[in-house]
Amino acid sequence: MTASRRRDFQITDAYPTRGEGPERWIERADKVVWSDWTEDAPLTREQANGFARDGFLVLHDLFSPAEVEALVDAAAQLRAEGRDRAGDDVVTEPGSDAVRTVFRLEDHDELMARLSRDARIAGIARFLLGDEVYIHQSRLNYKPGFSGKEFYWHSDFETWHAEDGMPRMRAVSASLLLTDNRAHNGALMLMPGSHRTFVSCVGATPEDNHKSSLKAQKVGTPSQESLARLAEAHGITDAEGPAGTLILFDCNTMHGSNGNITPFPRSNAFFVYNAVSNALVEPFAAAKPRPDWLARRGAAEAVEVEEGRLG
Amino acid sequence: MTASRRRDFQITDAYPTRGEGPERWIERADKVVWSDWTEDAPLTREQANGFARDGFLVLHDLFSPAEVEALVDAAAQLRAEGRDRAGDDVVTEPGSDAVRTVFRLEDHDELMARLSRDARIAGIARFLLGDEVYIHQSRLNYKPGFSGKEFYWHSDFETWHAEDGMPRMRAVSASLLLTDNRAHNGALMLMPGSHRTFVSCVGATPEDNHKSSLKAQKVGTPSQESLARLAEAHGITDAEGPAGTLILFDCNTMHGSNGNITPFPRSNAFFVYNAVSNALVEPFAAAKPRPDWLARRGAAEAVEVEEGRLG
Repeated sequence: MTASRRRDFQITDAYPTRGEGPERWIERADKVVWSDWTEDAPLTREQANGFARDGFLVLHDLFSPAEVEALVDAAAQLRAEGRDRAGDDVVTEPGSDAVRTVFRLEDHDELMARLSRDARIAGIARFLLGDEVYIHQSRLNYKPGFSGKEFYWHSDFETWHAEDGMPRMRAVSASLLLTDNRAHNGALMLMPGSHRTFVSCVGATPEDNHKSSLKAQKVGTPSQESLARLAEAHGITDAEGPAGTLILFDCNTMHGSNGNITPFPRSNAFFVYNAVSNALVEPFAAAKPRPDWLARRGAAEAVEVEEGRLG
Repeated sequence: MTASRRRDFQITDAYPTRGEGPERWIERADKVVWSDWTEDAPLTREQANGFARDGFLVLHDLFSPAEVEALVDAAAQLRAEGRDRAGDDVVTEPGSDAVRTVFRLEDHDELMARLSRDARIAGIARFLLGDEVYIHQSRLNYKPGFSGKEFYWHSDFETWHAEDGMPRMRAVSASLLLTDNRAHNGALMLMPGSHRTFVSCVGATPEDNHKSSLKAQKVGTPSQESLARLAEAHGITDAEGPAGTLILFDCNTMHGSNGNITPFPRSNAFFVYNAVSNALVEPFAAAKPRPDWLARRGAAEAVEVEEGRLG
């Protein structure tokens, strides 16, 4: 059953990647904003148009200072506790017990769970994707100052399609900054408009690729030639802002971040929402799917969006 | 003679560093701007005051587009020729013949030599230092896109004092950008006001330290605690600008640069001017001085400043 289903999907694969052919560009076959804008939408018309055009949106002042402070405290608490319960979904710095990433964030903390359902995030995701949404992946990210490493250019969708079996481009990432973030401490860089091009990458997926790709992605990244052409065509925007800033970006927007020698750490709460109609099938270009804490499988459980303040 | 002279200077060393004691902060004992401002000065009063206050100055539009273009061409030519005459003062990328640095820049190219004497650079240096100036060090820097490495925080003076024997803080660096430089492609970061504090560093200088310190400085960098305190007190400024921008900074201003994953390379022509009255003596904290192409020794030859356009 699984095998034949997988074959069916490969036949109709809209975004083939990591095959035997050369790198190539494929025009996006999916919408970016899946709802028609109305006055009730959780974004202004300009914001919705901006997201459709650029493939991302940076929103300031959605959360009150008190809410941001409570989230920052919760994150510190999680990192402190994380030392004692390190497992697959709690990643520490190499050679240290400092917690760098906590996956399945909403399972680890009630305030973060509430945040993942908040109308100001999940409600916007639901509008953008024109469907009920579920959490494909979530994590608390923390990168220390002085030695924060870069993360090279990639489209998330390329990995999610190849390794997780996400069929179409109908997912959005939401990053809520928990520290001030500027270009010089490694703010997220995005290429506006790059979400309209799928870069089909070369090279097969190694077994258990995620064990190294979470630290530095090797497979599924475009060539320097493609990246230079994309950057030339689209430019690069730094998603800067104070703690509390929300960055929403399409699953296929080319992004990356530089290393950081400043003393200022970076941290964010990160949620990927996928349309329930776009739930995962078998991977399109990997022998087996990644673990559930990296890409939620099984019956898609729609997020129950909640209005009002956190807490 | 050499030994006794060195001992004399150690006794009166205003900026001891790399000794046996702990890290400590020493207040600057030297002026920053050594000339009194007059209407004839090559900087406005505001610019001169800004340099004294911040320890750096970013100047736009000093050079015409045609001059900048000629310099960019000369730099490309030098890098192309450098492959064929790699020596101690021409540094290539590890595992490649791509030229990354050409030291003694004014000895390699006539236009660069003319630039090193230009009133818009050397004339300003002469004003700031209140003395005739000579070139302590110069280089063409080129860092490719996608993989440009970071350079960690340091005060140049700390190294020049310890390893080259520069007695006092009476030198200024001038970096003329030959590519557009923004925070996200690793623009120079400076801590404004940090030039008033000398951070006396721990750890002895290893033999032939410059062979590794040019790639990544290990000795002579402040602790994370000191850097965090300095950044907290002073903040961090990104010296951004298009090709042709001139960045002048005091020898003791704390600075560094991040790595660069963007496709956009960084390049600059870099000249360090020292006051002739501040010529090098024996190193204050190293067994022997660095090579001449890193730190010019011998009789200080004053730059003959030239007015007018390049070329």
